[in-house]
Amino acid sequence: MAGIVERRVERRSGSIRQEVDDRIVEEAPLEIRLEGTPLAVVMRTPGHDHDLVLGFALTEGILLGPRELAAVETVDENRIELRLASGVTVDPARFQRNFYSTSSCGVCGKASIDAVRVSAGPLNPDFRMAAETLAGLPETMRAGQVNFEETGGIHAAAAVDSDGSLVALREDIGRHNAVDKLVGVLAPDRWRFGDLALFVSGRISFEVVQKAAVAGFPVVCGISAASSLAVELGEELGMTVVGFVRDQDCTVYCGRERII
Amino acid sequence: MAGIVERRVERRSGSIRQEVDDRIVEEAPLEIRLEGTPLAVVMRTPGHDHDLVLGFALTEGILLGPRELAAVETVDENRIELRLASGVTVDPARFQRNFYSTSSCGVCGKASIDAVRVSAGPLNPDFRMAAETLAGLPETMRAGQVNFEETGGIHAAAAVDSDGSLVALREDIGRHNAVDKLVGVLAPDRWRFGDLALFVSGRISFEVVQKAAVAGFPVVCGISAASSLAVELGEELGMTVVGFVRDQDCTVYCGRERII
Repeated sequence: MAGIVERRVERRSGSIRQEVDDRIVEEAPLEIRLEGTPLAVVMRTPGHDHDLVLGFALTEGILLGPRELAAVETVDENRIELRLASGVTVDPARFQRNFYSTSSCGVCGKASIDAVRVSAGPLNPDFRMAAETLAGLPETMRAGQVNFEETGGIHAAAAVDSDGSLVALREDIGRHNAVDKLVGVLAPDRWRFGDLALFVSGRISFEVVQKAAVAGFPVVCGISAASSLAVELGEELGMTVVGFVRDQDCTVYCGRERII
Repeated sequence: MAGIVERRVERRSGSIRQEVDDRIVEEAPLEIRLEGTPLAVVMRTPGHDHDLVLGFALTEGILLGPRELAAVETVDENRIELRLASGVTVDPARFQRNFYSTSSCGVCGKASIDAVRVSAGPLNPDFRMAAETLAGLPETMRAGQVNFEETGGIHAAAAVDSDGSLVALREDIGRHNAVDKLVGVLAPDRWRFGDLALFVSGRISFEVVQKAAVAGFPVVCGISAASSLAVELGEELGMTVVGFVRDQDCTVYCGRERII
């Protein structure tokens, strides 16, 4: 199965030892190149690599939309090249992941938020989701996850519409990669995603909210906690951020008007 | 409390809504500079920042030992400067985090492992830990975690000796940062750590094993899964890697001779 490797391990339970074939999440480096220039190396779970690089290029603001791309070329199993559409030019030096470190006001949460505000457009103010719909998302995600049950060690990101129907789901050992793969699979048909909510298995960090904002998700929710800077960014951008979605409970950090 | 911010949120439980003051893990960017040159910006939980930058510089191979440093200077709350001891020179350009991307054999797991093998020395072959000691580590970690109970959203890394006694523990919203803070607090007194095991709350990824190897931990264990590349690297370096440490159970991926 893609993204999983089999390996002989020793299971211990008290004093009992047993050699078994275990299934382990695969992790391998992927170099993303733009017209010959290396942009980044990400440690990812192989599989859906073209989705990953398209999503990465979009959520990092390297591309403004999927049509700026002419082709995604596999150089080898761990190297992918992005080819720009005719007439499109981008300066790779501008798009370092730590772009906010050069902000004139210094490195601080405010500079980070300001940098995202520039590249993220307005979020759909009319999107609504019922609290009962939200409560069903953990189960929807579990049902859609192929690899988690197998390995117990993989993150997932799901896009759902306002009635909770699963539109797409992607898995990866990295939380950010799962979001990028999800963005990449959806983008060709419906960039940006003003009518979808993003549901994630892991913590809601600044970077997850940043990527979601650039992709236009009006709601970001998950089963775990959000960070302070994630909530500040979400609030600043008018996003709805909801954590600890478990059974009938949740914590609405900001944008509560969208949860009805 | 350091690393936690209070914030008004809406708790929902079924149809019940309640405004409460919640405690959220703080996340903020920190720029690490070496003699005036920016090395990296990490998103971290503020607190123990000097530990973080020293640990980062060591585990990324920028410094070979804590004595290469003359001082760690706080420029402002989100910027720290490393000052080298007299006579020590390092070329910051050599120490990009994605250093293996320039390996002549291309980007692959093998290149990644080879790059680490160069900077990590041999690991202590004589370190032993009883399986019962290992089984007690999740409880040891929970008892040592200050912030998790408060927020439910923070990772921890602990160093324990062979009888399971807690030597140090650090928390951070980032898994890697927790390891770096732990390395940084221990390094001045006992670099490297051939007589300690590393226990982590999150998944055991390639990068966690890489950092642990450079720091000399002979055992890396945790409550969650390890990735394929983490296990390959651990095996290659003669490290013991153990996952899913829960109750009396665990999965020994490699180096089983150290778990007795």
